Amino acid sequence: MTAEANVGVVGLAAMGGSLARNLAHHGNKVAVFNRSWGRTEKLMAEHGSEGEFYPAKTMEEFVASLSKPRTAIIMVKAGEPTDSMINQLADLMEPGDIIVDAGNAHFPDTIRREKAISARGLHFVGCGVSGGEEGALKGPSMMPGGTKESWETLKPILESIVAKAEGEPCVTYIGANGAGHFVKMVHNGIEYSDMQLIAESYDLMRRGLGMSPSEIGDVFEAWNHTELESYLVEITAEVLHETDKKTGKPLVDVIVDHAGMKGTGTWTVQTALDLAVPVTGIAEAVFARGLSSQGELREEALKQHFEAGRSGLESMPLEERQAFVNDIREALYASKIVAYAQGFNEITAAAKEYGWDIDLAAVARIWRGGCIIRAKFLNLISDAFESGEANVSLLFAPYFKDALETADRSWRRVVSRAVNFGIPVPVFSSSLAYFDGLRSDRLPAALIQGQRDFFGAHTYQRTDEPGVFHTLWAEPGREEIKES
Amino acid sequence: MTAEANVGVVGLAAMGGSLARNLAHHGNKVAVFNRSWGRTEKLMAEHGSEGEFYPAKTMEEFVASLSKPRTAIIMVKAGEPTDSMINQLADLMEPGDIIVDAGNAHFPDTIRREKAISARGLHFVGCGVSGGEEGALKGPSMMPGGTKESWETLKPILESIVAKAEGEPCVTYIGANGAGHFVKMVHNGIEYSDMQLIAESYDLMRRGLGMSPSEIGDVFEAWNHTELESYLVEITAEVLHETDKKTGKPLVDVIVDHAGMKGTGTWTVQTALDLAVPVTGIAEAVFARGLSSQGELREEALKQHFEAGRSGLESMPLEERQAFVNDIREALYASKIVAYAQGFNEITAAAKEYGWDIDLAAVARIWRGGCIIRAKFLNLISDAFESGEANVSLLFAPYFKDALETADRSWRRVVSRAVNFGIPVPVFSSSLAYFDGLRSDRLPAALIQGQRDFFGAHTYQRTDEPGVFHTLWAEPGREEIKES
Repeated sequence: MTAEANVGVVGLAAMGGSLARNLAHHGNKVAVFNRSWGRTEKLMAEHGSEGEFYPAKTMEEFVASLSKPRTAIIMVKAGEPTDSMINQLADLMEPGDIIVDAGNAHFPDTIRREKAISARGLHFVGCGVSGGEEGALKGPSMMPGGTKESWETLKPILESIVAKAEGEPCVTYIGANGAGHFVKMVHNGIEYSDMQLIAESYDLMRRGLGMSPSEIGDVFEAWNHTELESYLVEITAEVLHETDKKTGKPLVDVIVDHAGMKGTGTWTVQTALDLAVPVTGIAEAVFARGLSSQGELREEALKQHFEAGRSGLESMPLEERQAFVNDIREALYASKIVAYAQGFNEITAAAKEYGWDIDLAAVARIWRGGCIIRAKFLNLISDAFESGEANVSLLFAPYFKDALETADRSWRRVVSRAVNFGIPVPVFSSSLAYFDGLRSDRLPAALIQGQRDFFGAHTYQRTDEPGVFHTLWAEPGREEIKES
Repeated sequence: MTAEANVGVVGLAAMGGSLARNLAHHGNKVAVFNRSWGRTEKLMAEHGSEGEFYPAKTMEEFVASLSKPRTAIIMVKAGEPTDSMINQLADLMEPGDIIVDAGNAHFPDTIRREKAISARGLHFVGCGVSGGEEGALKGPSMMPGGTKESWETLKPILESIVAKAEGEPCVTYIGANGAGHFVKMVHNGIEYSDMQLIAESYDLMRRGLGMSPSEIGDVFEAWNHTELESYLVEITAEVLHETDKKTGKPLVDVIVDHAGMKGTGTWTVQTALDLAVPVTGIAEAVFARGLSSQGELREEALKQHFEAGRSGLESMPLEERQAFVNDIREALYASKIVAYAQGFNEITAAAKEYGWDIDLAAVARIWRGGCIIRAKFLNLISDAFESGEANVSLLFAPYFKDALETADRSWRRVVSRAVNFGIPVPVFSSSLAYFDGLRSDRLPAALIQGQRDFFGAHTYQRTDEPGVFHTLWAEPGREEIKES
């Protein structure tokens, strides 16, 4: 076995196999290894002729087939299988070699692993990969985190296989240790809010305006030629236009309305809570999926026949209905901007907490292609960070500020109508509440501080004097004392 | 040193000192120990005559002064100090003795500690205590979790010191290991939503209707004679009626509007996410505090002068204003019911996950006194669980269902007006969205499942046939295949 492969892939299930083929398609010499040889054999039989592969039967053979610095990409199940493969590789590798975990690891695990592996003189890279199986094969968006030194080696390899957006490769160095997996996690959180916003828009047209899935599909198709142009809007039109072959009904009407999830949305919200960053849009989207899947609760609720809300908006004159569809588009865009602003704020807070130097403009750029949330407006987000206008919040960049102000009346009409007609729009309304909270000169949090001081002596600050104060609420004079 | 004390307290800071005195006031013979003798000396000098105390200079003396089974209540800082005291005690105690952690431990820590301590033959009780320093002295609400055997010993001791609600002591056995601290955590989460709902109501009257803090204080005082009767509504009136002595302004106007928090609200939401239980009201309340404290973000937002929302509702005729205040009361009650329903759902889910047998009616009963969320309507909640009517959700018990239906129109008017006037009401609106989601026959989650199947082959279920299905979206015929 001569050391000729410039990169290797460990784990040849759907994602790993696709990634290996993608690497081979772009001139890389790809060592491949799978715990069971059968899968390697199958990949070689079906796709071995697509490029230069170096199939290995053992981990020893695999490592021996790699040229130095050895670069091995692991694509196996998160958790124990990943740890096991990392350790087997590390035992056989030499200082300077690079282990890339391209699975869906939670970033604290990546931080832990990077610490352990770098202590052995190896490079460990936690790399977020978005785009699913098709992306892995034809061009994903990739978010690597690790040492800058390892990035020098990885850069040409990853740039050769990722999606291109306006000619630029959708990969960039994110930051040290867990930064790549962190950014991928937030990407997924934003994906949750994007999808829920589309679902709320659909629901308003469906149950509110009484439109058919196909008519609504036409609306999304049209919206895909506006500022909403994005992969998710595009496939929404596809899904809504799909007819079920068995029943002849719209497919969406045949699908059980219990939304599944795999955990990254949950992580995004839990981490934001640790960082004290409000991500209301993502949280409501995660909760909405959770509620949809609570079968027993929903069944019992239906039996209760709650007298609430009113029937749909079908009785609206045509012109008003068209205006309302336009309002929904504006509300969707405004809420989407808020959710992205919150997501980027979470990245900023994490960068500070974990000492990562993350280029938000570059993050927005690599999300323009290959990944699920790819969208035209990421160009504008990238510009806003590039110029420094979005340093504190995306909402303060002139383009986005203007977009929110333009959408303002539509946004409020949509939420208030939804509320009056009993259609839940949790992400529309929580995004609007966040916007209204943000732009409030005074918030009622002052009252909360007063309550906290009353029952728990938690103290408060004064607007007119520095220091920390406490009112002696239980004593007759209710004197205020300065605590520090 | 004779073993005469029937209970001991370790840690004599504000909470521990008050608890020790409370125990002594009720005929208990109380051993007391603090890491530094000075604090013990001070407590004895100031309060030693209030009952029978057994001050100990060393942990050895402390343990020796306790009669068997020895019962020691630890009230020190959460984290390392608690672990340290537990271990020191355990080293000196004998099988059958009881260690109670009455601090604010996170329940997974309590589960861990109980496992370690019970392996040594001792009983470990994680006990939630609510009511602050005053409660600890005059009667808290207590939520102990541990073995039933230890509860037999603890019951008379704790019943002697807790608050009484309608003659019943506000303490009950919650469940094994971490159950007590878990229930206390959810209590605090509910407290967050209660406080935020009051704050949103205040904001609507203040910025919306242009009422003064004192006028709004009158409203809360009046509401305290309705179904909203509760400690938090009562103290809200007190805070709003308070005049700042320095400036003559309402105190609430002088307090900086950045709400602080200590972590239990965050834990409640993070845990609910792990359990896949939507707690939208608590989450929005935690996020609202977070947003209020983001100084840089808010300052920059003000500089932006967002053109959005409209001015207040001051121009409303008097009669309409009074009707609107009444609407706010109804909306507050409905949203509060939803937040409690979500909190109890979280307890139910945790009980299932951790194998706890929690009596929800008893939990509601012990929250009626001593704790921050004490309220008249907990009687109704207790009844609803007692009768089994609230088994699936509090919202399905006839009284609460009726309350929601009665409040329905007011609730919708309040949210839609708030939205139109640019006043953020995140908990009002997310609670309403949850209610509307819950009572929806079909949710747009079906579209989300379609999208997930399209981009990630995540599969879906059909409404008309069991099994798991996937549409081959990328192939020309778009055939549906049955995966299992």
